[in-house]
Amino acid sequence: MSKRFFDLSRTETRDNYKLLSGLVVPRPIGWIGTRREDGSNNLAPFSFFNVVSSNPPVVLFSAGSHPDRPKDSSTLAERTGEFTVNIVSEEVVEAMSVTSGSFTADADEFEIAGLTAMEGSVVDAPLVAESPANLECRVSQVVELGEAGLTRLVVGDVVAIHAEERVLDGTRVDNDALRAVGRMAGNSYIGTKERFEVTRPN
Amino acid sequence: MSKRFFDLSRTETRDNYKLLSGLVVPRPIGWIGTRREDGSNNLAPFSFFNVVSSNPPVVLFSAGSHPDRPKDSSTLAERTGEFTVNIVSEEVVEAMSVTSGSFTADADEFEIAGLTAMEGSVVDAPLVAESPANLECRVSQVVELGEAGLTRLVVGDVVAIHAEERVLDGTRVDNDALRAVGRMAGNSYIGTKERFEVTRPN
Repeated sequence: MSKRFFDLSRTETRDNYKLLSGLVVPRPIGWIGTRREDGSNNLAPFSFFNVVSSNPPVVLFSAGSHPDRPKDSSTLAERTGEFTVNIVSEEVVEAMSVTSGSFTADADEFEIAGLTAMEGSVVDAPLVAESPANLECRVSQVVELGEAGLTRLVVGDVVAIHAEERVLDGTRVDNDALRAVGRMAGNSYIGTKERFEVTRPN
Repeated sequence: MSKRFFDLSRTETRDNYKLLSGLVVPRPIGWIGTRREDGSNNLAPFSFFNVVSSNPPVVLFSAGSHPDRPKDSSTLAERTGEFTVNIVSEEVVEAMSVTSGSFTADADEFEIAGLTAMEGSVVDAPLVAESPANLECRVSQVVELGEAGLTRLVVGDVVAIHAEERVLDGTRVDNDALRAVGRMAGNSYIGTKERFEVTRPN
């Protein structure tokens, strides 16, 4: 099959985004809650996010940047050392999208999207009560990407998990109850209902 | 809604895996190609993987560990400084699953799974010819997770992309042509056909 070749030292930034966000799919959504110095809440979704280890339990997100500075979620997580990850299910996907907008630096996205901020049990950062599950995280390291260091990879230890009883069977997650949503390119999302099994060889 | 609380300083490793791999879904699959010192090829899939930046273009994967040492993919990527990411579509999902098995350290997973190894144009690591798209990557940093440092987060700059003409419309990716597959918990996978749009607020 004939393939087109892209030398990424010669491509435009915008094309790199379209290619990478279109090819690396579906992505899980980390809806990141952080707290400002004045005690107000910040909430924004990121799909440059994943779990990267379960022993120790570690997740990370990359918030990208405004033209001249890192985005608020990474700045606040780095400053406070704490953040939450709120799982995005079909019930909250519209509210999640609302919080992806560009607001003033002191806007409370919980209020804007009509969401309830719950206090963390371990960390001082807000949880989305309406999410079916929430992770409380402590920043362990921040990795700078690129020469300007504006894109920051925030790595965090998961110290606590909250999950609705109805999505759990012991510690196994019931995907049909969870109804998690994944991110595709652009404004496109994918549900997780149409699953199939592939048996591992050994 | 009543939520169950897990303090992760008190949970079992196995439960942490079940909770995190069940809640953080769907995950994209990085089918990682690396080369051994003797020139033979290694190929294995990881869903603790994602794109984390498009400017600069960066992906990462976490290979986890055997009980006593990091997995081969991270060891080899770290040693050679190079790896490939091969996109997993419905056409190759069975072959991907075959390569997830535990083989001897000198096994060629391309041969075992009946796949064609293509040479990279920029890096000295094998590409899966049957994948609809491939990324060539150079290791920029390795982040150790956990005290033993056995779980290693391999961060790489994407230096080149190959993509079948039929999955592209300029640099936009046609998801219906790509038919990428995502990872759920256990042996469960999800296609990317049943998408829906959510309009951003601003």
